[in-house]
Amino acid sequence: MKPVLSVVKIGGAFLEEPGLVESFTSAFASLEGHKILVHGGGQRATALSRRLGVEPRVVDGRRITDADSLEVAVMVYAGWANKTLVARLQSLGCNALGVSGADAGLIRALKRPAGEIDYGFVGDIASVNAPGIANLLAAGIVPAFCALTHDGRGQLLNTNADTIASELAVAMSDKFTTRLLYCFEKAGVLRDVSDPGSVIPRIDAAAYADLRAKGKVAAGMLPKLHNCFQALEKGVDQVFIGAPEMLTPGHAIQTEITL
Amino acid sequence: MKPVLSVVKIGGAFLEEPGLVESFTSAFASLEGHKILVHGGGQRATALSRRLGVEPRVVDGRRITDADSLEVAVMVYAGWANKTLVARLQSLGCNALGVSGADAGLIRALKRPAGEIDYGFVGDIASVNAPGIANLLAAGIVPAFCALTHDGRGQLLNTNADTIASELAVAMSDKFTTRLLYCFEKAGVLRDVSDPGSVIPRIDAAAYADLRAKGKVAAGMLPKLHNCFQALEKGVDQVFIGAPEMLTPGHAIQTEITL
Repeated sequence: MKPVLSVVKIGGAFLEEPGLVESFTSAFASLEGHKILVHGGGQRATALSRRLGVEPRVVDGRRITDADSLEVAVMVYAGWANKTLVARLQSLGCNALGVSGADAGLIRALKRPAGEIDYGFVGDIASVNAPGIANLLAAGIVPAFCALTHDGRGQLLNTNADTIASELAVAMSDKFTTRLLYCFEKAGVLRDVSDPGSVIPRIDAAAYADLRAKGKVAAGMLPKLHNCFQALEKGVDQVFIGAPEMLTPGHAIQTEITL
Repeated sequence: MKPVLSVVKIGGAFLEEPGLVESFTSAFASLEGHKILVHGGGQRATALSRRLGVEPRVVDGRRITDADSLEVAVMVYAGWANKTLVARLQSLGCNALGVSGADAGLIRALKRPAGEIDYGFVGDIASVNAPGIANLLAAGIVPAFCALTHDGRGQLLNTNADTIASELAVAMSDKFTTRLLYCFEKAGVLRDVSDPGSVIPRIDAAAYADLRAKGKVAAGMLPKLHNCFQALEKGVDQVFIGAPEMLTPGHAIQTEITL
C-alpha cells in the first residue's frame, strides 16, 4: 500500500493575524503522516508594496508582477511569511523546512508568454522534482512551499499557490496516496454565500456543472474548483475544501470534491 | 577517510552588485565535494529599513535588532538574498537549497540576554543539527544558510553569518574533513591595508598575537580571525580568508589560518 501524503494549502489571509497563524499551525502540526504545506502571502505583499511606493498593477483582476513586485513577493512570501510559519511549526514539533520552487530545483516553471496581457514575472509550472520531494519526506522533513518558482536559468517567478498545491499533489500521486486540502476562512463551499452553515458536503463533476449553470459559485471559487477537478483527473486520491479545523481528527464539516 | 566538506561564507557586500553575485556563484558552483554556503545581507537590509522608515539602531558599532528590524532582516536575508543566490546556483547546476536555522531545526540559538546593551532579537548559537545537515548533504543538496536562527519556541533570531559558518564547520567536523572559507572583497588578510598585494599567506596563533600587538589588524578583521582560531581549536581542519577566486582550482593567493 502506498503511504499517505497530505498537501495542505493555506490562504494568505491566515498569515495576517497571529491568532489565525496559531490555530492553523496547530491544526497542521497535528495532522498525521507525510505532509506538505503550501502558503500564499497576498495581502502582506500588497501592504509592503504600498509602503515602498510600488503600486500593485492589476489588469482584469489579475496581478501583474513587474521586477519591483517580484522583489516584494520574494521578500514577503519566501522571507517573512515562510520563515514565520516554519519557526512556529518547529516550536510545535513539526519538522518544517521552508522552500520556494527554486530550492533543490523542486518546481520549475516557464515564464508566461506575453499575450494580450503581459503578466510579467509569472510562471506556469513545467515540472515538479518528485524524487527530490520524496527524499525530503523520507528524511522526516515537512516541506513548506511559498508561491514562488524558478525557470532554471536563474529567474524567480511568481506562481499561484493553489496551482502549486494541486501540481505537487499530482506529481506525488505515483508514490503516495495523495490528499489535497485547500484551507480557507470558510468551512467549505457554501450553497448560499450569506449562510456560513450551508456547506455542501460533496461536489462531483455533475453537481459542479449544475452549480455553475445556476451561477451559484463565487467568482473566486471557480479557479479553485477547476484545480480540484484537474487534480482528481490526474491521479490525486482525495480533495477537500474547508477551514483549518478539517485537518484535526474527527472533524466532519468540509466539502469533498469528487469526479 | 572522512569526506571533505567546504563551508563557504560570503559577505553581504557581494550581493549588492549583479556582477559580483555572478562571479561568486560561478566560483562556488565549481567547488568540488560537499559544500555549504553561508551568506550575509547587510547593506540591502539597511537600505530597505531606510525606505520603510525603520531607522537602524547601532550601539557601540553593534546593530540592535528590534521587531521591525528583524522583519526587514527576515525579508532580505531569507527572502531576496537567499532565493536570488539559490536560483542563480541552480542555473549553474549546483543543487542549492536555501535555509535559515529554523528550517528543519538546523540551528537553534538563545536570545542574547539583555545586559548593558539589549541587542534585541539576536541569537547566540546553542546547537547545530549535524545529522539533519548530513542528511541533506547525502541527498546531494547544497544547503545555503542565511544569517537567521530560531529559539525553538517560534522566535526567529538574527545571528552573525561569520559565526554561523564557523559553528557549522565545527559541528560537521566529526563526520567530515572540514574546510572553512571566508570570502570577502580582498584577496586575503593584508599586511598593509593600503596595498592589496600585501596578502599574508599564513597566520598562526603566534603571528596573530604579534599582528594584534602591533595594532596591524583592521577592526573588522578581529572577530573574523577570532572565529577562525576558535574553529581550528574545535576541530575544523583548514581555514582560509580570501576573495571568491580562492574557490577555483589552482588559485594560490589567500590567507590560511593555522594554530
